[in-house]
Amino acid sequence: MLKFGIIGFGFMGQTHAKTIETLDYAELLAVCDTNALQFKEASDPILTFLKADELLAVPEINTVIIAVPNHLHLEMVKKAAEAGKDIICEKPAAMNAAEFSEMMQITQAANVRFTIHHQRRWDKDFCIAKEIYQSQTLGKIFTVKNSLYGFNGNMHDWHIYPEFGGGMLYDWGVHLIDQMLTMLSPSRLTSVYADVQNVINKNVDDYFSIMLRFDNGVTGQVELGTYMLSEKEHWFERHWFIGGNKGSAVIDGFDPQGAITRTSELLQSVSGKVTMTPAGPTRSFGPPPEGRIISEPLPKVHVNHEMFFDNYYCFVQGEEELAVKPNQIFFLMKVLDAIRVSAETKQAVALA
Amino acid sequence: MLKFGIIGFGFMGQTHAKTIETLDYAELLAVCDTNALQFKEASDPILTFLKADELLAVPEINTVIIAVPNHLHLEMVKKAAEAGKDIICEKPAAMNAAEFSEMMQITQAANVRFTIHHQRRWDKDFCIAKEIYQSQTLGKIFTVKNSLYGFNGNMHDWHIYPEFGGGMLYDWGVHLIDQMLTMLSPSRLTSVYADVQNVINKNVDDYFSIMLRFDNGVTGQVELGTYMLSEKEHWFERHWFIGGNKGSAVIDGFDPQGAITRTSELLQSVSGKVTMTPAGPTRSFGPPPEGRIISEPLPKVHVNHEMFFDNYYCFVQGEEELAVKPNQIFFLMKVLDAIRVSAETKQAVALA
Ligand SMILES: NC(=O)c1ccc[n+]([C@@H]2O[C@H](COP(=O)([O-])OP(=O)(O)OC[C@H]3O[C@@H](n4cnc5c(N)ncnc54)[C@H](O)[C@@H]3O)[C@@H](O)[C@H]2O)c1
Ligand SMILES: NC(=O)c1ccc[n+]([C@@H]2O[C@H](COP(=O)([O-])OP(=O)(O)OC[C@H]3O[C@@H](n4cnc5c(N)ncnc54)[C@H](O)[C@@H]3O)[C@@H](O)[C@H]2O)c1
Repeated sequence: MLKFGIIGFGFMGQTHAKTIETLDYAELLAVCDTNALQFKEASDPILTFLKADELLAVPEINTVIIAVPNHLHLEMVKKAAEAGKDIICEKPAAMNAAEFSEMMQITQAANVRFTIHHQRRWDKDFCIAKEIYQSQTLGKIFTVKNSLYGFNGNMHDWHIYPEFGGGMLYDWGVHLIDQMLTMLSPSRLTSVYADVQNVINKNVDDYFSIMLRFDNGVTGQVELGTYMLSEKEHWFERHWFIGGNKGSAVIDGFDPQGAITRTSELLQSVSGKVTMTPAGPTRSFGPPPEGRIISEPLPKVHVNHEMFFDNYYCFVQGEEELAVKPNQIFFLMKVLDAIRVSAETKQAVALA
Repeated sequence: MLKFGIIGFGFMGQTHAKTIETLDYAELLAVCDTNALQFKEASDPILTFLKADELLAVPEINTVIIAVPNHLHLEMVKKAAEAGKDIICEKPAAMNAAEFSEMMQITQAANVRFTIHHQRRWDKDFCIAKEIYQSQTLGKIFTVKNSLYGFNGNMHDWHIYPEFGGGMLYDWGVHLIDQMLTMLSPSRLTSVYADVQNVINKNVDDYFSIMLRFDNGVTGQVELGTYMLSEKEHWFERHWFIGGNKGSAVIDGFDPQGAITRTSELLQSVSGKVTMTPAGPTRSFGPPPEGRIISEPLPKVHVNHEMFFDNYYCFVQGEEELAVKPNQIFFLMKVLDAIRVSAETKQAVALA
């Protein structure tokens, strides 16, 4: 049985509490928050504490979820490891790779389990994209695009403060990039080139466009903006495009819409036919002739975010490998550091 | 009166002949092609020649259009300049900046007029995008995206041979990048980062994704693939996205559809509200509340490709500045060279 304590009982801490209620292998014993107002969301008979140390002193708790703002993750991981608790820490795991390396050393030395809550590895849109990518039915892939657009503009709460680990790279960036690394594994990311901007928010990034070069020749493209508008349907949702030399896949939305699309034939390498468009004749582009475009439905996947916990529990039971491994997250943190260097220097940055 | 001879009477040469028929300040006197079969498209009483030298010997011709495959542009510019003819050369102007520099020297020394047929500066979609960009009504712009997707896969005719100047960078790349440079002018492009691939075509590029960094902080993103499929409506047409901190513009299609979109309000920098999505709760993304998204129609523009010739004629008459200036095209050629270096080295390449 996983006997949980949650440190940081805000949006995500409360989400975890609700999830734990649905898991038959887990129980929530206590929550901790410096802001007592948050406790009105705690259901009896859960213990509430204003200090992490008090929660960590509860001997029955074997596993701690850390859901405080990002700049406090390291401090809380230290405390929890010292107290001998297994640790599930929220993403972004740390402020940078150096901090995460310290976390890895501490948790290894304390001999406690350690993972990061990257539940978006079980997002439906991502799992469909991953299944298509890995099935190799699109032939040789040249690009994978993963994007997300928003209308809110401003970020909220502590996310507007750089010193708290604010900004969209920390918030959604780690998810989107972790998905790319997971999907393309075992291919290795060799370099990144990034444009990162503060569009609406004064002090933290809220737009990024990143090119990720993998050693199998695939270029990943990740783009996110909190203020990128369109009246197109489903615009404010996730967008995947996978392009291969045998077809493309489009996956839109959290509840995914889209298709795998192929052509019934390719242009033969002979004299091209002229297509008349309102912008003059063209021989390479323009509307396809009837029947040239053929679509297949997206594969069905059955996933949900609880699977993060299912895997973690099976790992604890010795039945499964841990899905979100610290060494993967160490690499992810190095990628995030490299993205910041790239944005600053306007140079591509290689990954060791 | 412009008295034209056309060298290279294939697809584009014939397109030019038809255009000239509609211009009251121009007349077509002769065409030249090494392939006599092309002459069946020539209307009487136009002279036809198998050799450029023969056409260039016709004294009444004052202006030559060069519409042979790309690797022959330099040779033909040399011949035409020697013959004292004014020159309109097809794009890509040259195979590289060194060749173009030679062309500039030769035409200057011969004291003949010289321009490049970049008629896509008068594309409707581009002119709408440019007008929106330059109107500054979207606030501070962070990105301009310019993309084009195709279903044909293979390229046609001589475009599949690198030694003839084949590949999509030479074919459409110069148009798309020239549009970006024109639109953002007087801001200067400072560096490029490019992924260029041969997806379907063995020996020439048919996919590219390029990031263009301008000195005013705007990042241009140009993407083209000859095999990037989707069943979405209007997919196989042009796509523009302009993102600013006061709104976005979407322009789709050769006959442009789209809108300028803004929000009635932005999220205030306070506690965010939770949006439930099929992929779990989120506070930053998800469907917008009713009324939050406000659209305005795209501006109307009245342009057509003949305006390239109108401008050239007015320039000859001393009434207008030449629109497509050799020094602009020299820079464009340098950008194209830099893109090839970037694709090869996977590094950003600075522009002098
Ligand atoms: N995996 C995901 O999809 C996901 C989604 C949202 C947030 N998160 C992560 O969860 C963490 C928390 O984010 P949130 O959105 O819940 O923020 P939040 O502001 O809603 O909650 C944070 C809580 O921590 C409390 N807190 C601050 N300092 C504390 C301390 N020293 N001791 C105890 N409690 C303290 C605050 O009072 C607050 O209630 C962040 O790391 C964030 O990145 C992850
Ligand atoms: N501005 C545009 O939008 C646009 C569009 C298409 C093509 N182009 C350009 O126009 C040029 C021609 O392209 P195209 O599509 O018409 O190709 P094409 O193959 O249809 O025509 C080229 C013609 O040149 C002839 N030719 C070859 N060598 C010759 C020589 N030594 N002397 C005389 N004629 C010769 C060929 O027989 C052929 O008829 C290229 O530079 C191309 O990039 C521009």
